[in-house]
Amino acid sequence: MSDITIIDLSRVLAGPYATMVLADLGARVIKVEHPKGGDDARAYGPFIRGHSAYFASINRGKQSIALDLKSAKDRLVFEALLERADVLVDNYRPGVMARLGYGWEGLAARYPRLIHAATSGFGQTGPDSQKAAYDMVVQAMGGIMSVTGHPGGPPTRVGTSVGDITAGLFTVIGILTALHDRDRTGKGQFVDVAMLDGQIAILENAIARYAATGESPGPLGARHPSITPFAAYQCANAPIVIAAGNDQLFAALAKALGLADDPRFASNDARTAHAEELAALIEAVLATRPAAHWLSRLDAAGVPCGPLNNISQALANPQVKARNMVVHTALPDGTPLIAAGNPIKLSGHADPDTRAPAPGLDADRAAILKELGL
Amino acid sequence: MSDITIIDLSRVLAGPYATMVLADLGARVIKVEHPKGGDDARAYGPFIRGHSAYFASINRGKQSIALDLKSAKDRLVFEALLERADVLVDNYRPGVMARLGYGWEGLAARYPRLIHAATSGFGQTGPDSQKAAYDMVVQAMGGIMSVTGHPGGPPTRVGTSVGDITAGLFTVIGILTALHDRDRTGKGQFVDVAMLDGQIAILENAIARYAATGESPGPLGARHPSITPFAAYQCANAPIVIAAGNDQLFAALAKALGLADDPRFASNDARTAHAEELAALIEAVLATRPAAHWLSRLDAAGVPCGPLNNISQALANPQVKARNMVVHTALPDGTPLIAAGNPIKLSGHADPDTRAPAPGLDADRAAILKELGL
Repeated sequence: MSDITIIDLSRVLAGPYATMVLADLGARVIKVEHPKGGDDARAYGPFIRGHSAYFASINRGKQSIALDLKSAKDRLVFEALLERADVLVDNYRPGVMARLGYGWEGLAARYPRLIHAATSGFGQTGPDSQKAAYDMVVQAMGGIMSVTGHPGGPPTRVGTSVGDITAGLFTVIGILTALHDRDRTGKGQFVDVAMLDGQIAILENAIARYAATGESPGPLGARHPSITPFAAYQCANAPIVIAAGNDQLFAALAKALGLADDPRFASNDARTAHAEELAALIEAVLATRPAAHWLSRLDAAGVPCGPLNNISQALANPQVKARNMVVHTALPDGTPLIAAGNPIKLSGHADPDTRAPAPGLDADRAAILKELGL
Repeated sequence: MSDITIIDLSRVLAGPYATMVLADLGARVIKVEHPKGGDDARAYGPFIRGHSAYFASINRGKQSIALDLKSAKDRLVFEALLERADVLVDNYRPGVMARLGYGWEGLAARYPRLIHAATSGFGQTGPDSQKAAYDMVVQAMGGIMSVTGHPGGPPTRVGTSVGDITAGLFTVIGILTALHDRDRTGKGQFVDVAMLDGQIAILENAIARYAATGESPGPLGARHPSITPFAAYQCANAPIVIAAGNDQLFAALAKALGLADDPRFASNDARTAHAEELAALIEAVLATRPAAHWLSRLDAAGVPCGPLNNISQALANPQVKARNMVVHTALPDGTPLIAAGNPIKLSGHADPDTRAPAPGLDADRAAILKELGL
């Protein structure tokens, strides 16, 4: 994507995550930040030596220029950037861009090849379009929290910001689709992605279960609702997960654990109907030895399984290292920082193990103004 | 994407979700299924009148032809499809395609414009590449389960298959990037996406926290680790979520709830350090009235907030309906079925509220063979 320039007004996570993915694929991303403090996420912890590690990891490899879009002088700079840009990204509340004089109709008339992607909490249309949202709000309203956690237990948030991140990924897909269309039509498009819509889009079988039964499914702790065995099971010292998604894998599991044939477990549907009885039988065997023993035996039997890793263990996994999924970047003062790598491995793209640091606020002003001839 | 034809060997969820997203954007998707039973997900519940609602929702609008890639006759049909295709998708274990005689080097030589996207559990490279994985395994190994759930509580799976779904979304982005490149180079690419890599890529601030402290963060129940207040809080009758992501929003919240000024809550960082004390003060006020009262008051004050919806409530939300996020499709026997809509709203694309049903196994054989002249 090294031919693509993105002007990025977005802040915090959904928009910046989208432009991070595009930057990792080679696009040039110019953050346009408010002169007073810039992106809110610069003030979000965790901090290392006074710098937000959170901001630094999501904004690695981007450039920054501070512009006040209410200042006539700064608007000229912004418009000069739009003249040269392929994509404009914002995650303001719907209506803010129009009030700034940059509504889509005007942009499309003036910059016909420009793609404008707007990521918002609730979308550009509908009765709630003017409301603000953060990740937690859409996790709650979209239903994912109702299927996460333990039956009868307290509300449970997904531990990472899937509300923002999935909206970011859908935004990337919208931008790339609009670029594909532009190669045929010569014209840009408006891309409207709502965080709440993204949460509905990832509910998958929770919607199918609701459609099938008319009842809202509840949380199931650590097991899959319709595939069995597919859960966390306790060994002598720690839990492991086992995921036997079809009859052959279940047969291999039963053999490895010495489980007797049982008509209650003859099909996936039967196993799901008797998930608790099956879990009791599996755990009776697993309790006799530690997790490492069973992971090794199940691996040898070809049964999908794995340990419950914490973050340190997850990042230290030799497979994760071999896949270059932990990359090296730096804080603004040069302090080294690790961050997640790019999971999209393309045969025609390099996959470097370093990333340029995130920019200081307005760090690229001089170079950008020079390039624009301003 | 109506100019794009995808040959889809993938099964279950990660690959089929990717091709569903592309089908929703206009691509033609031809599922190539094994003659014996086809896609495993045809046997996954929930079932309605004997048909998998799960399979039907993920495969709406695709075509199906049953081919045995070990049969010489069927291989000719498959190769005729590849001649006309833009993209080949599989989610076999790495090595299976090569053993079938369809390794990437051979495909690239014979079909130079073809893009081949392979989605796998652990990726095409690295020490674990040959292992199979399902969603639950990569949720456990990738670390997201270690930050989901309640402190000291049992392991908690994210209630939807984020391992598959994020891999599916990264696969779509890889395919669209390769299409963008092909418009410039004339050549296809190999796209290698691992479910485990995708889990690392969505950890966001969990990695930043680990980098900042050297310690693996644990689960935090229903609150955000570094933004406060940003959690579920109990009202008189039910919990609600409140997400005040900056000082202005916190000031609005404090005013709406009548909280006194307090130096412990003067900045986001200070509030996060005193999250429990702040939650106690907030809940003391919320406990005096029901959730509906507080949602209305906080909405009026412009504070991001929302109810904890179950699936039924989430789908009935007027905003979700207004955004066309619940679409209508059908089971193979014509029984109506609802499914999640397309969250990528593009100004140049129609967003119909219906989808053609998922195909029966081999349902499109005659039409496809005729089209191929076979």
